[in-house]
Amino acid sequence: MDLQSRLQPPGGTGYLAWLRNYRRAWLAGDLTAGLVVSVMIIPQSMAYAMLAGLPVQVGLYASILPLIAYALFGSSMSLSVGPVAVTALMTAALLAPMATVGSAEYLQLAIWLALLSGLLLFIFGLLRLGFLANFLSHPVISGFISGAAVLIVLSQVPHLLGLPELPSSPEALLSGWQAINSLILGMGLVALVWLLYARSLLARHLNHLGLSMPLARILARLSPILVVVAGILVTRFWELQAAGVPVVGELPAGLPALVWSTPGVGTLYSLLLPALLISLVGFVESVSIAQSLARRKRQSIDANRELLGMGAANIGAGLSGGFAVCGGFSRSVVNDEAGAQTPLAGVVAAVLIALILVTLAPLFSQLPLVVLAVVILVAVSPLIDLASLRRAWRYDRAEGLTLLVTALGVIVFGVEAGIVLGIALSIAAQLWRGSRPHVAVVGRVPGTDYFRNTKRHLVETEPHLLALRIDESIFFANTKAIEQAIQRSLSDYPDTRELLLILSAVNHIDSTGLDMLSELSEGLLERDIRVHLAEVKGPVMDQLEKTDWLEEQVDEVFPSTLIAFNTLSSISRPMANDEEVTA
Amino acid sequence: MDLQSRLQPPGGTGYLAWLRNYRRAWLAGDLTAGLVVSVMIIPQSMAYAMLAGLPVQVGLYASILPLIAYALFGSSMSLSVGPVAVTALMTAALLAPMATVGSAEYLQLAIWLALLSGLLLFIFGLLRLGFLANFLSHPVISGFISGAAVLIVLSQVPHLLGLPELPSSPEALLSGWQAINSLILGMGLVALVWLLYARSLLARHLNHLGLSMPLARILARLSPILVVVAGILVTRFWELQAAGVPVVGELPAGLPALVWSTPGVGTLYSLLLPALLISLVGFVESVSIAQSLARRKRQSIDANRELLGMGAANIGAGLSGGFAVCGGFSRSVVNDEAGAQTPLAGVVAAVLIALILVTLAPLFSQLPLVVLAVVILVAVSPLIDLASLRRAWRYDRAEGLTLLVTALGVIVFGVEAGIVLGIALSIAAQLWRGSRPHVAVVGRVPGTDYFRNTKRHLVETEPHLLALRIDESIFFANTKAIEQAIQRSLSDYPDTRELLLILSAVNHIDSTGLDMLSELSEGLLERDIRVHLAEVKGPVMDQLEKTDWLEEQVDEVFPSTLIAFNTLSSISRPMANDEEVTA
Repeated sequence: MDLQSRLQPPGGTGYLAWLRNYRRAWLAGDLTAGLVVSVMIIPQSMAYAMLAGLPVQVGLYASILPLIAYALFGSSMSLSVGPVAVTALMTAALLAPMATVGSAEYLQLAIWLALLSGLLLFIFGLLRLGFLANFLSHPVISGFISGAAVLIVLSQVPHLLGLPELPSSPEALLSGWQAINSLILGMGLVALVWLLYARSLLARHLNHLGLSMPLARILARLSPILVVVAGILVTRFWELQAAGVPVVGELPAGLPALVWSTPGVGTLYSLLLPALLISLVGFVESVSIAQSLARRKRQSIDANRELLGMGAANIGAGLSGGFAVCGGFSRSVVNDEAGAQTPLAGVVAAVLIALILVTLAPLFSQLPLVVLAVVILVAVSPLIDLASLRRAWRYDRAEGLTLLVTALGVIVFGVEAGIVLGIALSIAAQLWRGSRPHVAVVGRVPGTDYFRNTKRHLVETEPHLLALRIDESIFFANTKAIEQAIQRSLSDYPDTRELLLILSAVNHIDSTGLDMLSELSEGLLERDIRVHLAEVKGPVMDQLEKTDWLEEQVDEVFPSTLIAFNTLSSISRPMANDEEVTA
Repeated sequence: MDLQSRLQPPGGTGYLAWLRNYRRAWLAGDLTAGLVVSVMIIPQSMAYAMLAGLPVQVGLYASILPLIAYALFGSSMSLSVGPVAVTALMTAALLAPMATVGSAEYLQLAIWLALLSGLLLFIFGLLRLGFLANFLSHPVISGFISGAAVLIVLSQVPHLLGLPELPSSPEALLSGWQAINSLILGMGLVALVWLLYARSLLARHLNHLGLSMPLARILARLSPILVVVAGILVTRFWELQAAGVPVVGELPAGLPALVWSTPGVGTLYSLLLPALLISLVGFVESVSIAQSLARRKRQSIDANRELLGMGAANIGAGLSGGFAVCGGFSRSVVNDEAGAQTPLAGVVAAVLIALILVTLAPLFSQLPLVVLAVVILVAVSPLIDLASLRRAWRYDRAEGLTLLVTALGVIVFGVEAGIVLGIALSIAAQLWRGSRPHVAVVGRVPGTDYFRNTKRHLVETEPHLLALRIDESIFFANTKAIEQAIQRSLSDYPDTRELLLILSAVNHIDSTGLDMLSELSEGLLERDIRVHLAEVKGPVMDQLEKTDWLEEQVDEVFPSTLIAFNTLSSISRPMANDEEVTA
């Protein structure tokens, strides 16, 4: 089928299918995208290394081997992996309690963290555990990212003000205003204005100047490199380093060495939870970016292959002295827009960054740190996403609350606690929802064969027939509530002789639920009320057939509510005990 | 309505309604039940105090004030509260790490534990948090009780063998067989045989001798008191205490003093989780006993009033030097069978036990401990419930596993860890089940208006209309799976132009699910496939109406699958792109 092959180009199904089926037509796009991405990610990589508390070259190291490793295993044709703001922040937050920022030990821990999370991801991929990421709900992810973005923005304020650390309060900032270095702040503000302009208006202005819109957009995306170059030139020309402007400092020229080293058992153990969290978050972020890009091109993403790809990328980062990586949003979009057809674009970018490291590394020594701080600020501030809080809150209070608590948890208690709190809350909300089932008394819509809730529609009911639709699977958390709802309806309809439970929305009955149903029907049989079922789903029926309840206490199972109504309406059983009749 | 008043005698609705409406006719039953229960629970209370690692009189203290306190607040007319095997074991297991068994500190902790769990229960009752107990599923409760029973049986083996502690292995038992005190073992075996006979056959034999069956059953239930009396007589007559048979020892004569003392903050903090667990387990056990007894008499149990009653009982226990109490199964059944009509029976039992304490306490000093051990063994061994493991396993593997893991968790890791493990597993199982939704392609059963799964029934479908029934609420844990199932069906039916999602079993859509649906339909619209909904439930519709998805991307919402089929079958839209048609 030609349709089929057109729907899935060029990812195909196997590993490296894109390479085996490589077409010459794709080469121009891949080369361009590789070039554009390499230029774009140089400032980003250095900035995120700084954010992670690491020497800037570590960010560049993490932008070479990981891209090649991902190309071998990943399933996305557009995803660009490398250092990313959120994982950089997580690296800093998770390692800060374990070693002094800037020490050799800290660097070694960051490398092991990447290695370990790569191994975990790879193993999860082999075990096909991609589904685990589903337990991060959107409000948790969104709350986490907003909270992390706030932390990142706060962490960059000292760089922008030329202060040694974040003032502990607004008062401390005001009273210590003399300490603010106005030279650094001025440079920062200029860079900030330029980058904000580049993000919002530059593309349109370039378009007005006659450039095509796609080209204009790509050039606008590259604006950070201009700030970097300008920063270096200004610093060299006016010798600002001597004037107290902090700069990147000497970079070791050349490529990183491939080193395999193993942490001790104690270190390994304390790195395990951090590695798991970074893996989980990085994986979820990568997959959602990859999916949204793949959808546009009607390609498909395989979550388990993404685990392998992300795992290989992080192992590559760890082996070559880099830190944890994952798929980045803006770099992937640029990669895609610049024409990337296959992961070859990533390989090209990796080779170019390696060349730059070998040749131009010494030039970066005069790059002011404030420039990198501004690059981070501008990249990260849009991640503070109040719109999705508003949307979640409006859609469902519990979800808005989950988002908010996750974000505040990240800001106040830290990255780990925030995520764990968010996951626990979203599971609790789900259980809570399931524990308050909707049980409706239904009747026939006059003149039709439809049955609807008596509270929402004008419907006809039969005096001796009570039809209840249970709108939830019956499980331990809601058995009591369902039992109460049934008993309440029975006392609202005291003439009931036939109880019809409509199970169209019951997808599972657990043993706690079954025990309740069986005790309930026992009690009803004593009161001479018969129990019937309707619209039992196949899987539920399969399970009920193993029980005594169905055989001994259920009178009849009807294929539809209509048949049940027609059959049961015509029945007029004599009352077992006339004295009990009250109406 | 006379029916109403007959359905709820004599509990009524308010507190102490039974007392306000007390009828002379109930008095005989309450007095008899009080007498029978007091005789029955004397050995039990002492035995369970021993199990909890406490002096035996503490068990008797816990059988006076708690019964009166429960009568003030509780809603059950039959429940008999007091020391119970499972809470006694929990007291021992939870306090053992905090103080030496037998020390004054240990006793004080046990009293505080009762007081604190009483306060917690009472507060939960005021806050109407009775529903919290619903999160203990039946497999968890059943696994916990079986595991606890195994621990209890093991803990009594040394008493039976006259050994100082449980041998660490079967080999240690064999190699140390000389240490076994054959006199104690002999007494134990005689008591054991008598009690087992009393439990299984005595009632029938007494019935053959001419006693009525109810009376015979009550006498058989009282057999432990005979063993106690015989044990005391034998020990006094042959002066067995001097021969090395451990006995209860001197009991302080008289009633317990009412003492209020407050633990320090540190102690309070470390008692909090134990108190919470004892409260939860005791509450769940009491409520299930109360409910099963109430059902027989068509009375009803109010979970929140049970919280207050159980709370008051434990506060009473703590104030009068007793340990944690809850409703006991065998004593409640005896209470009920002996004719208890109201909680007055409990008050009578409390008064009688107080009288016995004042008058007969010195007699108990010669009671051999092995007799109490046998009372425990016989009472507890039926709680090891393999039948419910078999039933749970047959009904649902995940539930059988939950039960088994809870039981093993209790035995291997202890009471707290076992319960927490069980709750976590049953929540995980529930999420796991929800994360693997059943999605069925449905078609019309020929000649009818019913729609059924194409895989289970021979049904008619339309080539360009794909009708999918989603058999699960759509939430974060299953959005990926549902998306994949929809995409798979779409590639199985490549001519689909109209996608009908039947939401009869969807009781909730969370924001993660909504995002998926909205991205999915965006992709489908690009492929010129329209999305329709059918059988959307009221609460789901209310929520969807707040979203853009319904307005912008859903073509039509049909009230029933039938209307949707009839409407959509007749449509024949021109293909947007003929080239894409393959079949």
